[in-house]
Amino acid sequence: MKYMNIITNAKNKIIRKAISLYTPRGRREHSLFPVEGVRAVTDALARGARCDFLLVAQSAEFEALKSEVAYVVSDEVFRSLSDTINPQGVFGAFEIPKTQVDETRGAVVLCDNVRDPGNVGTIIRTADAVGCGGVIFSKGCADVFGPKAVRSSMSGILSVPIKTDADLAEEAENLKKRGITVVATMLSANSVSLYESQLQKNCAFIIGSEAEGVSEKLAAKADMCVRIPMRSHAESLNAAVACAVVLYEHLRRNLV
Amino acid sequence: MKYMNIITNAKNKIIRKAISLYTPRGRREHSLFPVEGVRAVTDALARGARCDFLLVAQSAEFEALKSEVAYVVSDEVFRSLSDTINPQGVFGAFEIPKTQVDETRGAVVLCDNVRDPGNVGTIIRTADAVGCGGVIFSKGCADVFGPKAVRSSMSGILSVPIKTDADLAEEAENLKKRGITVVATMLSANSVSLYESQLQKNCAFIIGSEAEGVSEKLAAKADMCVRIPMRSHAESLNAAVACAVVLYEHLRRNLV
Repeated sequence: MKYMNIITNAKNKIIRKAISLYTPRGRREHSLFPVEGVRAVTDALARGARCDFLLVAQSAEFEALKSEVAYVVSDEVFRSLSDTINPQGVFGAFEIPKTQVDETRGAVVLCDNVRDPGNVGTIIRTADAVGCGGVIFSKGCADVFGPKAVRSSMSGILSVPIKTDADLAEEAENLKKRGITVVATMLSANSVSLYESQLQKNCAFIIGSEAEGVSEKLAAKADMCVRIPMRSHAESLNAAVACAVVLYEHLRRNLV
Repeated sequence: MKYMNIITNAKNKIIRKAISLYTPRGRREHSLFPVEGVRAVTDALARGARCDFLLVAQSAEFEALKSEVAYVVSDEVFRSLSDTINPQGVFGAFEIPKTQVDETRGAVVLCDNVRDPGNVGTIIRTADAVGCGGVIFSKGCADVFGPKAVRSSMSGILSVPIKTDADLAEEAENLKKRGITVVATMLSANSVSLYESQLQKNCAFIIGSEAEGVSEKLAAKADMCVRIPMRSHAESLNAAVACAVVLYEHLRRNLV
């Protein structure tokens, strides 16, 4: 295959734009986020995500090369693109989706300072699987459109409506006004066991931070506090695991 | 506080031993694994784990300094210890536990080439929370006693019986002979929905690899294949999340 132009200069404008998407500021400025790897980029295109441009390393083989928004870059320039390991030579800049959270579509998740980007992405992936109406992140959460969270979400980030930098106390109030039961997942022994709780069809679940759980201020806004049962002296679960257990309990009741 | 001896030489024998525990070979050789951070080391000591030695950075404050097995090291030497971020200045070398998997104690998890150390650790953490009889890892899994898996397990690694480098087909056969129902968690549409499945009290759950799921060879050994329901076009769940959903469904039935 021959290409008209191969970008060989790492200071090329489009390369600089791509690199900027690895910073929160660059993502905000361009309203784009980076997706890496053949599978993730293919998935994103298949889901109809709006692609601003693709970069493909010269030695990589990839159908999307035929797309009008694809640039071929030298392998050396491609390697300079990011510090993550990306042996596949495919990079896509996609528009940050603007879908509105819709609590009538399914359960809503409120993430209260979930700081690990892997957890953030995994929560979105699970929310996608169970058909959530959206995931709302507080200001203290890891950057949802950063590369690690995007990777962990396995394209879920393109399907589930997402809101970031939110004031969760305000969100909880608004959800309650619209008839949604706000449920805090807690460790405290005086909360109801998840399996004995009355989970309504329209629910919003608050997931706490890895280190501190749900903040007191926010728990006070909840209609109900539920506790995930444990049979050992373990103190807590991973935040993404806790989220999955409550979301699947909710799905279960709406399926059975 | 004054200390008799502060290790200031990075080539000191004990420092070299500590560094070796960041490699699979070093861990095998010494039958020790590294634990980092105040909370994790405190937890490990509280759970009665056998500590070979502790290293504490000169500037760190830590009760266990009083322990006989603690060495004080200069901050500079401490920083050279590992490439992970450890601002707390506490390192412990603990004996790799030798507890036998006991399927009468709770469900057993069989991990089939789970390659991400975060997933390995999170699976152990969840297994600990629900009181599993053990977690058995195939040869292709991430190193269970590596720092990332240990960290993600949140001390679960010290409570749940663990077997590594196992031949899972053989393990499945042996479990079946002892009357345990072996359940493969699959994506295939022809498997039974988890919520409609007949889960026995004595179960072993096979969790597949991130990329390929449960291998065909191993699925053929299972008594039953279950599918975790999804309400979207998502293809799969994170491995640790899938494990949590089946373990909690199992716990739920044994609680209610």
